[in-house]
Amino acid sequence: MIEKTKKILIVGLGLLGGSYAQSLTRQGYEVFAITRKQSTIDYALEHGMIARGTTEIDARMIGQADIAVFALYPHVFIEWMEKNGKYFKKGAIITDVTGVKCAIVDKIQSLLPEGVEFIGAHPMAGKEVYGIENSNEEMFKGANYIVTPNEKNTPHAIETCKELGRILGFANISELSPQKHDRMIGFLSQLTHCIAVALMTCNDDVNLCKYTGDSFRDLTRIARINEDMWSELFMLNKDILISEIKAFGGELEKLRRAMETDDVETMKNMMRTSTARRAMFDKK
Amino acid sequence: MIEKTKKILIVGLGLLGGSYAQSLTRQGYEVFAITRKQSTIDYALEHGMIARGTTEIDARMIGQADIAVFALYPHVFIEWMEKNGKYFKKGAIITDVTGVKCAIVDKIQSLLPEGVEFIGAHPMAGKEVYGIENSNEEMFKGANYIVTPNEKNTPHAIETCKELGRILGFANISELSPQKHDRMIGFLSQLTHCIAVALMTCNDDVNLCKYTGDSFRDLTRIARINEDMWSELFMLNKDILISEIKAFGGELEKLRRAMETDDVETMKNMMRTSTARRAMFDKK
Repeated sequence: MIEKTKKILIVGLGLLGGSYAQSLTRQGYEVFAITRKQSTIDYALEHGMIARGTTEIDARMIGQADIAVFALYPHVFIEWMEKNGKYFKKGAIITDVTGVKCAIVDKIQSLLPEGVEFIGAHPMAGKEVYGIENSNEEMFKGANYIVTPNEKNTPHAIETCKELGRILGFANISELSPQKHDRMIGFLSQLTHCIAVALMTCNDDVNLCKYTGDSFRDLTRIARINEDMWSELFMLNKDILISEIKAFGGELEKLRRAMETDDVETMKNMMRTSTARRAMFDKK
Repeated sequence: MIEKTKKILIVGLGLLGGSYAQSLTRQGYEVFAITRKQSTIDYALEHGMIARGTTEIDARMIGQADIAVFALYPHVFIEWMEKNGKYFKKGAIITDVTGVKCAIVDKIQSLLPEGVEFIGAHPMAGKEVYGIENSNEEMFKGANYIVTPNEKNTPHAIETCKELGRILGFANISELSPQKHDRMIGFLSQLTHCIAVALMTCNDDVNLCKYTGDSFRDLTRIARINEDMWSELFMLNKDILISEIKAFGGELEKLRRAMETDDVETMKNMMRTSTARRAMFDKK
């Protein structure tokens, strides 16, 4: 239970931060925000997404937070905590939405004042658009939410973080170590973004859209990609991502060799495996 | 204009054949069908999708068709025409829904009696499910339809084939030579299916569905794949498909090398290209 009297600070009002703010405010929490642009604060206030907000570092506001959610680029999150982590009050629980964990969890935990706890989380929701104008709490419905505790975390903080996921409306809340999270995400999210990008860069025919079917559209929806955010996420998980690209490339090679050698049976076997494994994603 | 008095034969009442039948019957055409299983005919009759149908080769029925649409596996289509093409009447126009063209167009045209014309078409619509029970004319809305004439085709047949696409409700009707069609489809459809299969076969973690976001779901929707149909389509277009796999693999390698060498600028440039090209698919 996160009581309605708890005060929640969101740092970074983008697509995800904005959606968190919208959902939590609607459900009766006092939500305040720190973000870069005044126009974002104005938008959030006009749309009733936050109670108050600032573009400055407001030590008092930070000190009021019972729970803080960081929705920033990884390096910005770390810099922010280096400068301002000291303002959090004892008992505050800090969480995030960052897409990589090993590269930030230990670092962030090393920057905390006594009695403040950081517990990582990764909401598996997003869109190929950005900014508070596109935020929408609906995107959490049916989605997965992964909490990534390490040995420094208390059961209380882990439970609070999971409860936050439930309050936001995520369908499945699960727990993974930062290491397992990064491996999973290297495959499920980062590799798929690499594939979408490579699909777009390998063909410069401007007429493709006149001939395409849904499958190409689906595979490349995420090819509209924020290059600053994703290149940072890729680099912070590069050892895992490189190995995932190699594993995937190996399977694609296997399929290609089967074609080259007229080995239809290998091709069909791969398709049968593919069909069987994909069916698991429909059950949920 | 295809007058409402025209009689239309559908050969093969699967997902696509069934959807064609449904749409054309609803719009007042007399549609009859030849298909393998009696249960399929029964289903189509019960659901008012056809006026009559048979599992036998009915020379009289074939001879009545003004327009015939073949929705069969490529090798079945060719075998069917070898045996029964002779029953078509002079003036009949034959078209199809086959996913490859070079491998069938010349062959089919060589099997036609005098005065009968074959003009290829590829409706870029489908689903990851099969069979008449899943057929639904709604799937044509907003979709692309490609007519693939060669030098043997008359303007009348080309226009009739395009008109059929319009009647069925396709949003964009375009024309490509069989060669250009096969190259386009090797990239847009076959490569994407190879990618989806390779994504499923390269990771056997049964817990993936608990952690996934939408991007992985989108990329693998088509990983539920009919291995008989797709392996046949792949093999019939294998030279092109192999070269597309190589081109795509090369771009993925480029992305991987950029990570290995910390070349963030190359990575960002690829993402910028990707974003710009993908935007063309949103305009329509």
